[in-house]
Amino acid sequence: MDSDFGVERELSDLQKHRSLYQPELPPCLQGTTIRVEFGDATTTADPSGAHSISRAFPHTYGQPLAHFLRATSQVPDAQIITEHPPIRVGVVFCGRQSPGGHNVIWGIYTALKLHNPNSILLGFLGGSEGLFAQKTLEITDDVLSTYKNQGGYDLLGRTKDQIKTTEQVNAALATCKALKLDGLVIIGGVTSNTDAAQLAETFAEAKCPTKVVGVPVTLNGDLKNQFVEANVGFDTICKVNSQLISNVCTDALSAEKYYYFIRLMGRKASHVALECTLQSHPNMVILGEEIASSKLTLFDLTKQICDAVQARAEQDKNHGVILLPEGIIESIPEVYALLQIETEKLLAHLVETEMNKRLKEGTYKGKKFNAICHFFGYQARGSLPSKFDCDYAYVLGHVSYHILAAGLNGYMATVTNLKSPLNKWRCGAAPISAMMTVKRYSRGPGISSIGKPAVHPAAVDLTGKAYELLRQNATKFLMDDVYRNPGPLQFDGPGADTKTVTLCVEDQDYMGRIKKLQEYLDKVRNIVKPGCSQDVLKAALSAMASVTDILSVISPSSTGSTPV
Amino acid sequence: MDSDFGVERELSDLQKHRSLYQPELPPCLQGTTIRVEFGDATTTADPSGAHSISRAFPHTYGQPLAHFLRATSQVPDAQIITEHPPIRVGVVFCGRQSPGGHNVIWGIYTALKLHNPNSILLGFLGGSEGLFAQKTLEITDDVLSTYKNQGGYDLLGRTKDQIKTTEQVNAALATCKALKLDGLVIIGGVTSNTDAAQLAETFAEAKCPTKVVGVPVTLNGDLKNQFVEANVGFDTICKVNSQLISNVCTDALSAEKYYYFIRLMGRKASHVALECTLQSHPNMVILGEEIASSKLTLFDLTKQICDAVQARAEQDKNHGVILLPEGIIESIPEVYALLQIETEKLLAHLVETEMNKRLKEGTYKGKKFNAICHFFGYQARGSLPSKFDCDYAYVLGHVSYHILAAGLNGYMATVTNLKSPLNKWRCGAAPISAMMTVKRYSRGPGISSIGKPAVHPAAVDLTGKAYELLRQNATKFLMDDVYRNPGPLQFDGPGADTKTVTLCVEDQDYMGRIKKLQEYLDKVRNIVKPGCSQDVLKAALSAMASVTDILSVISPSSTGSTPV
Repeated sequence: MDSDFGVERELSDLQKHRSLYQPELPPCLQGTTIRVEFGDATTTADPSGAHSISRAFPHTYGQPLAHFLRATSQVPDAQIITEHPPIRVGVVFCGRQSPGGHNVIWGIYTALKLHNPNSILLGFLGGSEGLFAQKTLEITDDVLSTYKNQGGYDLLGRTKDQIKTTEQVNAALATCKALKLDGLVIIGGVTSNTDAAQLAETFAEAKCPTKVVGVPVTLNGDLKNQFVEANVGFDTICKVNSQLISNVCTDALSAEKYYYFIRLMGRKASHVALECTLQSHPNMVILGEEIASSKLTLFDLTKQICDAVQARAEQDKNHGVILLPEGIIESIPEVYALLQIETEKLLAHLVETEMNKRLKEGTYKGKKFNAICHFFGYQARGSLPSKFDCDYAYVLGHVSYHILAAGLNGYMATVTNLKSPLNKWRCGAAPISAMMTVKRYSRGPGISSIGKPAVHPAAVDLTGKAYELLRQNATKFLMDDVYRNPGPLQFDGPGADTKTVTLCVEDQDYMGRIKKLQEYLDKVRNIVKPGCSQDVLKAALSAMASVTDILSVISPSSTGSTPV
Repeated sequence: MDSDFGVERELSDLQKHRSLYQPELPPCLQGTTIRVEFGDATTTADPSGAHSISRAFPHTYGQPLAHFLRATSQVPDAQIITEHPPIRVGVVFCGRQSPGGHNVIWGIYTALKLHNPNSILLGFLGGSEGLFAQKTLEITDDVLSTYKNQGGYDLLGRTKDQIKTTEQVNAALATCKALKLDGLVIIGGVTSNTDAAQLAETFAEAKCPTKVVGVPVTLNGDLKNQFVEANVGFDTICKVNSQLISNVCTDALSAEKYYYFIRLMGRKASHVALECTLQSHPNMVILGEEIASSKLTLFDLTKQICDAVQARAEQDKNHGVILLPEGIIESIPEVYALLQIETEKLLAHLVETEMNKRLKEGTYKGKKFNAICHFFGYQARGSLPSKFDCDYAYVLGHVSYHILAAGLNGYMATVTNLKSPLNKWRCGAAPISAMMTVKRYSRGPGISSIGKPAVHPAAVDLTGKAYELLRQNATKFLMDDVYRNPGPLQFDGPGADTKTVTLCVEDQDYMGRIKKLQEYLDKVRNIVKPGCSQDVLKAALSAMASVTDILSVISPSSTGSTPV
């Protein structure tokens, strides 16, 4: 089996063309000399969990953010990493394949060899199983040649999704020691990055010199937090699915007699469904987060769709397209037991029954309701990655190397300001433990237990800008058939450089702002040096007092985090 | 409802870019002067049906082929159409939408206005229903602007698929008379073109001056015969589906634990499945034609798949991709009654049961068999058309105009030599009745009845070159995972100008050869004119005698076509 991995293979014309594409690097990563600037010690977004997390990660919690800067940039405290001894790095795909994953490996490899040609990159074969069993493939130019900018995880493969049990963690530790790895890069989503943090902590505890780095690669797009704006693969998945959804919209508009119920992959969060809706403008989308927040029953949901069908029929529209994320059924408590039913078929059936009833009663006067069900699943996951995902993954690969070169452990590679052109991207690293939260579970009246600290999947933010955009357009989408067809994924010309709507409307760049804040604080310190005038000092004190007052009021208190 | 049709709409960047694409015309259609050369009277491919067809189509059977040539070409008998009075033409989408349909309309419109700006093109709204009800939209530059090179049939819509009953035919006749149409262009597949031929005959009989033209537009790709090499939409559908199939192949190779059963649209013939297999190299495909010809039972089919799974497991391969055309279940007599079951799920279930049995018995030693089912249906139909389909449809639109300008009735527009570059394409027209066959149905011992003459869907030719290519590669595809990923449909750069494998390997250009033959016969006639030497005459007689002998032997006899 292993002999199949990394084998040079025949590529189609388009694949060959793509394999020759060379992603650029943002200015901060160009050249061989990079500066690292460290920020303040990190905390967590939810202070109530900070204590539990700090107890679980004594060696890796509270580390500072790191920003990678051009060698020429004028930052007083930044360190220049000048020593680049040969290092040995392992890399492993964890969890579900996501378009662009190969480019992370290519990025690490390029950075590694650029700084020291004697460095070695080992890929673990068959995912975490290969990590436990010490099955590796040395990454070389030849191995990479037909995998650059290509989809899938077939360069290395993947099997099991977790590194969680004591046995698994010990096996990983044994491998890293046996192979004398200086670094281990884990490519994956929320679960895999939680595992990466745990490994980092265990390795530190065991005085194993291997540093662990996580890379946010998951097509679900749910590894989002103040430090991470987007995940590798999400852009591609949304583009491929939006193409198909908009094709179905065109179909609906041509035939004018069908309602299409389209189920999209994604269990816990509805990011893909939201983004695809913003790209292709189907008539309706139902997000798991909406159901959970407004406690909709299956009956409510059916009624909502039926009312929409009826309203459209009154305008002589007897067709439509409705998106359903796979996970919505899980959000409806009453049907937990029915999980084996396909969501789209269940809903289509319930709507059909209700529409027939209304037709009989005479409350609905439109044409007979016809539903066609579709599941858009595995056909997007193996796609050639979009230009954005190629670039983002490649840059993350480089960042991973610099994290290791800086000797950091338990960090995730971050690239921010992604909605701007690549030459404005900011590269950095954040401790994975700073992205963790702790869940509280009610176990009856007055009794609750708390879960293990983990990087949890981010739900769609129902107060966020992307969702607001959807709400603003919901009626127009529902009634006016303003279907938008972004067309098939392009690599040249119009459409090739578009980014997800979510990324573009969200006002993120948290890492950029944290850095900016630090600059302001430094400026105040510089201006108000001992020896400055009494007036300047008074003004500074007064201004800073009101700033701290305001911030104290609006910040969530951390006093609630009593140890359990 | 009607007010929605032809409305200018907002296009995505890629759609805008595509709407500016201007297909070229082959040399024979350039300029305003076109010559028409008529060939010999046509017969049908199956001589046994010729008599029935000639009886059913007394006014339109046996008409000659027509070839459109450059005004400057040196063909003695060709006519130049110099008169281009203003004409009124109607156009209607019949049957299922197929990518590229809009460009046929654009082509007709451009040719019409080029030859006489006072000509009028009327589009029927809502398909044949609009034709019966005289609901039209005048096609103008404004109407076309956002529909050029775009997918779907939403410029005009479509509803019912047929023009068959006496009532329907009379309604169509009344419309053409009321609107004073000189021509009616019917865009569709086998059924719609059969209807077009019937309308042409009825109109001729009724002395209605409207000439009827058919255009081969169907994504099934089953309107194939000696005159028609390809159908508008087939190229796009196969490219979109091949992209998705190859994505699933990449997925299978990355995860290494699933068998994907993918059902493709297409009831009667398996052209799409064959072409997609040649483009994306999945492990296995089962064609309806294979099942029908070798009378495979469901048990045979299950065993065949199970043996393949077992053979792969012996090489440590526990994943795979299997394509199933929608129609294969209909080809298996024993399960006619089970038609409500989805093909891919039925087969996946049967294979799983058998593999579990083998596992228990110890004859299969691989991993537990896991199937994932997919249906690739409506998501391809609404796609932006490929460059090939845009070009082909646009040229067919022009040809349709020239057929009407030449006063021909009951013809289909043809463009041949399609596998060569566009500047070598040949344009012509063939009587639709020449593409018809008559089916014989057995009604018990010694009793048979014959069906109505019709253009029947062409099955995949199991003796043809495309199928041969599949057979040659079947073992490699099955065992070696030589998956090929043509990538998403591109409009620029590598892959943008590829044509279907089927088209490229098939050695068609029947129309070109018929013309070449005529040239040879003319040459002989010219060389052996009365007054030539006795020796030349003797040589010609001897050579032609042996030619006719050979042809008589290899041609199917037409003596069997006794009138019924």
